[in-house]
Amino acid sequence: MTGYTMADSASADDVKVVILAGGQGTRFWPMSRTKKPKQFLSISQSGESLIQSTARRVLGLTTKDNFVVMTNIMHKGLINSHLPYARVICEPMIRNTAPSIGLAAIHLTQNDKDPVMLVLPADHAVSNEEGLLTALKEAVNCAAKSEVLVTLGIQPVVPHTGYGYIKKGKPLHGNAFNVGRFFEKPNHERAIKYFESGEFLWNSGMFAWRASTILKSIQKFMPELYDGLIRIKEVIGTAQEASVTSEVFEACESSSIDFGVLEHARNCAVIASAPFGWNDVGSWDAWAEHFDKDENGNLRYGDAVVIDGKNCVVHSQNRLIAVLGLSDLVVIDAGDAMLVCPRGRVQDVRKVVDELQRLKRAELI
Amino acid sequence: MTGYTMADSASADDVKVVILAGGQGTRFWPMSRTKKPKQFLSISQSGESLIQSTARRVLGLTTKDNFVVMTNIMHKGLINSHLPYARVICEPMIRNTAPSIGLAAIHLTQNDKDPVMLVLPADHAVSNEEGLLTALKEAVNCAAKSEVLVTLGIQPVVPHTGYGYIKKGKPLHGNAFNVGRFFEKPNHERAIKYFESGEFLWNSGMFAWRASTILKSIQKFMPELYDGLIRIKEVIGTAQEASVTSEVFEACESSSIDFGVLEHARNCAVIASAPFGWNDVGSWDAWAEHFDKDENGNLRYGDAVVIDGKNCVVHSQNRLIAVLGLSDLVVIDAGDAMLVCPRGRVQDVRKVVDELQRLKRAELI
Repeated sequence: MTGYTMADSASADDVKVVILAGGQGTRFWPMSRTKKPKQFLSISQSGESLIQSTARRVLGLTTKDNFVVMTNIMHKGLINSHLPYARVICEPMIRNTAPSIGLAAIHLTQNDKDPVMLVLPADHAVSNEEGLLTALKEAVNCAAKSEVLVTLGIQPVVPHTGYGYIKKGKPLHGNAFNVGRFFEKPNHERAIKYFESGEFLWNSGMFAWRASTILKSIQKFMPELYDGLIRIKEVIGTAQEASVTSEVFEACESSSIDFGVLEHARNCAVIASAPFGWNDVGSWDAWAEHFDKDENGNLRYGDAVVIDGKNCVVHSQNRLIAVLGLSDLVVIDAGDAMLVCPRGRVQDVRKVVDELQRLKRAELI
Repeated sequence: MTGYTMADSASADDVKVVILAGGQGTRFWPMSRTKKPKQFLSISQSGESLIQSTARRVLGLTTKDNFVVMTNIMHKGLINSHLPYARVICEPMIRNTAPSIGLAAIHLTQNDKDPVMLVLPADHAVSNEEGLLTALKEAVNCAAKSEVLVTLGIQPVVPHTGYGYIKKGKPLHGNAFNVGRFFEKPNHERAIKYFESGEFLWNSGMFAWRASTILKSIQKFMPELYDGLIRIKEVIGTAQEASVTSEVFEACESSSIDFGVLEHARNCAVIASAPFGWNDVGSWDAWAEHFDKDENGNLRYGDAVVIDGKNCVVHSQNRLIAVLGLSDLVVIDAGDAMLVCPRGRVQDVRKVVDELQRLKRAELI
């Protein structure tokens, strides 16, 4: 049980912040669109986008030239404008986190480098930023000093059914534990069991590992992807880079790093972090948690009036929205499109996007 | 039991169509506003406004120079643009139908004229226009030949609680009856009794009488209003007309012609008209009756999508509105303001207008 500081094992220059910004965020329709996914939206009055907040929160860990953003070619311009200092590595198509993290690792091991990769989703929210930083430092240090795949776990504060869980194994040092097992999002009953046991952590989707460590694991558990990555490595910086990367991504299977690698690996660790007001902002309901409500529990963002109604979420844009006689309603106005649904149905917003796809309304997706 | 034709008693020139267009139509917020009440809105794809439809439907009864519109000074310009051929008489303030009809009668009896006034609300809808015309002709002829106050009654087709009722008295001739009694809007139980008895008619708010006949009745039952009207009569066409009219209206009581005069008068008749698809378009719910629905009973006007929902009314304007997982919902988009409420609450839209008044949001009222 030893505490580590950055100086123990990872110098600031040895840390690369890898922000995963390939998400489409259909659950935030109509505000998020194919051309402007959730990570580019702001959820605060400050106007800072989610990806800008994600980067700013960890500026204390390394210098700006060590920020890398993995994204779709379509969003390169947006990344440049939101995070002008970050290096952008483009994925030719959407293939979930395993290929994305593999591609990052291959690029970061050029010239025989082997930095610690701190992998962060671009679109999460955190209210206690110091708490986050403390936990990330421990994760980075843990990853720096041994060949271990570190996931940042968070002590659950409610039996949430929207997050994956990690069962703690044997204690390693500090707040680090071996991983007992990864678990998918549970149903409500199971979530309560996890929560009450005290042995489970939320899987935050934030990871730390040396580039060489994750590559070795990819080689072991996703060998086809690994072979593709090696093909890319050989052509980085040449005229073939784009076409080979495209070929590899086209051929590779779409898989999360959790499912493709971590669930099989023996060298997984998890940091049992105290909660730091983390939220994956996975729906309009989760978004609403970040704002003050009026005396009837209504979140009125912009010009909105709620009469005879409670616990509504009304996001107005350039017009007054008046809700009369309805509770637990979500109304989101994005200017050219508007969503009206009950709070209990926000997880199904994809159905609207699917319907618009069917109707060939590409301009609204 | 004799049938009358127009030629029997009222020549076309002897008929003045008096359209009452003083209503504010707050129940159609956010489409209707103080500056553009319901009568100026269109409810059909043709784009014809309610007041334009009202006038066009009765063009067969008289010539265009016999159309008079009673309205608020604020709406004179709108009337001129919607009905360029009509004479506009301005009411200095809103005082319900009795002062409005009295003012019309005083103007129409200038130069010892005594036309039959056919009084029509500006903002009702009719699907069978021939049926309406037949009934109005009978009302006009009935009013032309004797000193009688004729209300156009309509055979109920459902036990509606949103309309006033008239109990038929003794038969007079054709479809004309004495009035047994006027009844206010009933509750549901009472509406069923009225409906099942076969002795009740809907009060359409359409009337016919000679100008002299209604003035005599006003003299009898609203003597203060009558005195005021006579004061106005003496100054019509002079520099004092506007100020005297203002004084009289300011002093007079706000009362409907039904409540102030008809309920007390003995010389009331009612035409028992067959239904002609009449609707007072008294709410968004009633408005919806005029449109075709999709296979789930949803009225989608403009760009609207309803998923997992039935019997919704969605009126979109310049944007897509997506309703997910909600039934019996009303969404009305007026561009700068939007209403979301259950169908069962459309009668309470005034609460929104009141709240906006309280919030000093005059631009939205």
